Amino acid sequence: MHLHLRDGEMLDSVAPLSAKYFSGAIIMPNLIPPVTDKDMLISYRDRIYNAIGDEVFEPYMTLFFKTDYDYDFLKSIRDDLTAIKLYPAGITTNSESGVEGFDIDELKPILDTMSELGIPLCIHGESNGFVMDREAEFIPIYEKLATAFPNLKIIMEHITTAKSVEALEKYENLYATITLHHLMITLDDVAGGMLKPHLFCKPIAKRPEDREALLRVALSAHPKVMFGSDSAPHPKHTKEAPGCAAGIFTAPIALPLLTELFEKHNSLDNLQNFVSTNAQKIYNITPTKKQVVLEKGDMDIPLLYGDVVPMMAGKKCSWNLITLRA
Amino acid sequence: MHLHLRDGEMLDSVAPLSAKYFSGAIIMPNLIPPVTDKDMLISYRDRIYNAIGDEVFEPYMTLFFKTDYDYDFLKSIRDDLTAIKLYPAGITTNSESGVEGFDIDELKPILDTMSELGIPLCIHGESNGFVMDREAEFIPIYEKLATAFPNLKIIMEHITTAKSVEALEKYENLYATITLHHLMITLDDVAGGMLKPHLFCKPIAKRPEDREALLRVALSAHPKVMFGSDSAPHPKHTKEAPGCAAGIFTAPIALPLLTELFEKHNSLDNLQNFVSTNAQKIYNITPTKKQVVLEKGDMDIPLLYGDVVPMMAGKKCSWNLITLRA
Repeated sequence: MHLHLRDGEMLDSVAPLSAKYFSGAIIMPNLIPPVTDKDMLISYRDRIYNAIGDEVFEPYMTLFFKTDYDYDFLKSIRDDLTAIKLYPAGITTNSESGVEGFDIDELKPILDTMSELGIPLCIHGESNGFVMDREAEFIPIYEKLATAFPNLKIIMEHITTAKSVEALEKYENLYATITLHHLMITLDDVAGGMLKPHLFCKPIAKRPEDREALLRVALSAHPKVMFGSDSAPHPKHTKEAPGCAAGIFTAPIALPLLTELFEKHNSLDNLQNFVSTNAQKIYNITPTKKQVVLEKGDMDIPLLYGDVVPMMAGKKCSWNLITLRA
Repeated sequence: MHLHLRDGEMLDSVAPLSAKYFSGAIIMPNLIPPVTDKDMLISYRDRIYNAIGDEVFEPYMTLFFKTDYDYDFLKSIRDDLTAIKLYPAGITTNSESGVEGFDIDELKPILDTMSELGIPLCIHGESNGFVMDREAEFIPIYEKLATAFPNLKIIMEHITTAKSVEALEKYENLYATITLHHLMITLDDVAGGMLKPHLFCKPIAKRPEDREALLRVALSAHPKVMFGSDSAPHPKHTKEAPGCAAGIFTAPIALPLLTELFEKHNSLDNLQNFVSTNAQKIYNITPTKKQVVLEKGDMDIPLLYGDVVPMMAGKKCSWNLITLRA
């Protein structure tokens, strides 16, 4: 429910990997330039369909949030749109044209319209503050929006802290996605031993007690929580350079690793809800049925997919994806 | 007062850079194997003298801490030794054979002997805990040692947190070194934007309020605080690899950058004490007099010294090191 497919060659390389293992995904709009009108959205969706070929896979499209979208425009695009994604300006990859300040009066027209049309608002919730505090500092904005727009579904994207879990439980219209990597790693894994660029992402992995809070709601498949891989491919040479880009690539290995994780915590019964059913309810979507079968048995995680290094490259996973049935 | 000169080719490459700009330094003993007897110490010192050639520079030698050093041994080496450096096991580069557990009874013979012979104990004070907590978690051990061995000078090496500053002020026999980089950067600079391997070090740079506390005691040249660059060269290819080694190379640029920093904070009058005089009093050392003259004016920081990338590579510093007079 939170996937970066990029564009061009990278799209052609990574889209089939998601399409093979999932029946649908919420597609992030932070291309260069970002997806901001119907033509761009339809044409990006077409490029995704082209890239995935025969696979059964639904790209749930999003627009890049702008305050000047009006009712007529959103009504006209409603059927092609699953959500709108808001980025604070400059906060992550290709988000330079995002929102600055969060003035309720300024946001009211667009957010009232989205509430009326039932379009969820997905937010990358980080401040421009100190890297370990950015998500916690954004929570007052979540709370302000959740209170001012009670009929708007607000998705706190890729939450990483115990404080976000608290906020989620406090406000009825707040929901959240959680990545695989934030369930697996803390800042220790990124910078506690050697420095690991392939585990560097935004929001950065936090403290052990934060991961514990995320595991609690993910493993119990809290109904307001859904899996969103935030799988974000960058070419190997940009990840291993001195100014390493933020993002972890997990799309093709996320399901086996999630299965291993849920099994380890005796929570396999909740995996279906966390990965799929919760999101269908939250977004009111019904993807084409597709059965993904996982089997116990060692899988070798490749060192590379094209020129992208996946998380856990070269390691083993104790579950295997063996068959996919439409 | 805290310098890594390494050995072999790296020693030959970096020792002249420190020798050119400083009149002496406390030399860290974590070679492979670590410096643990008189022959090793003398021969390492000879290799350092060979590497620096004609420069006026005193390598103040240290032994790698071991509990089984006895009185006779330490007495025999006392004149060649300035301090003993203790590493908790496995905590940083080449520290696998360090101390595990900090049992006062076990440490008593050696620490009593050091107290009697007036040999300071330098400690890399970190636990094996979460990367942002390691230094704070070690403070109870500093406190335990400071209390149990009141006549032992204990140097808290390269402190990075406000909590260490508090401990320093609380116990009479605790002293500290502070690096240039911990006065300049926080975790934000390492991982808040792109990931910066050349700013990755141990202890990792901490929070803004920690840096503020360090600046306060450094800029005021607190008499128990001394500059220790912890300049730690690693070849470029090991810093820019996916498993990047910890360490920042600052030896040849530390003085101009410190001068810029002290000037910015209207503290130039305290620079001499922070960089030199405090340490001479704490260690009871009198290096050969050497006058280092800094002049206002742009200096271009090189991209490389040999195959080592310095901090701030390619940037400018507003002070220049122009003459050195013995």
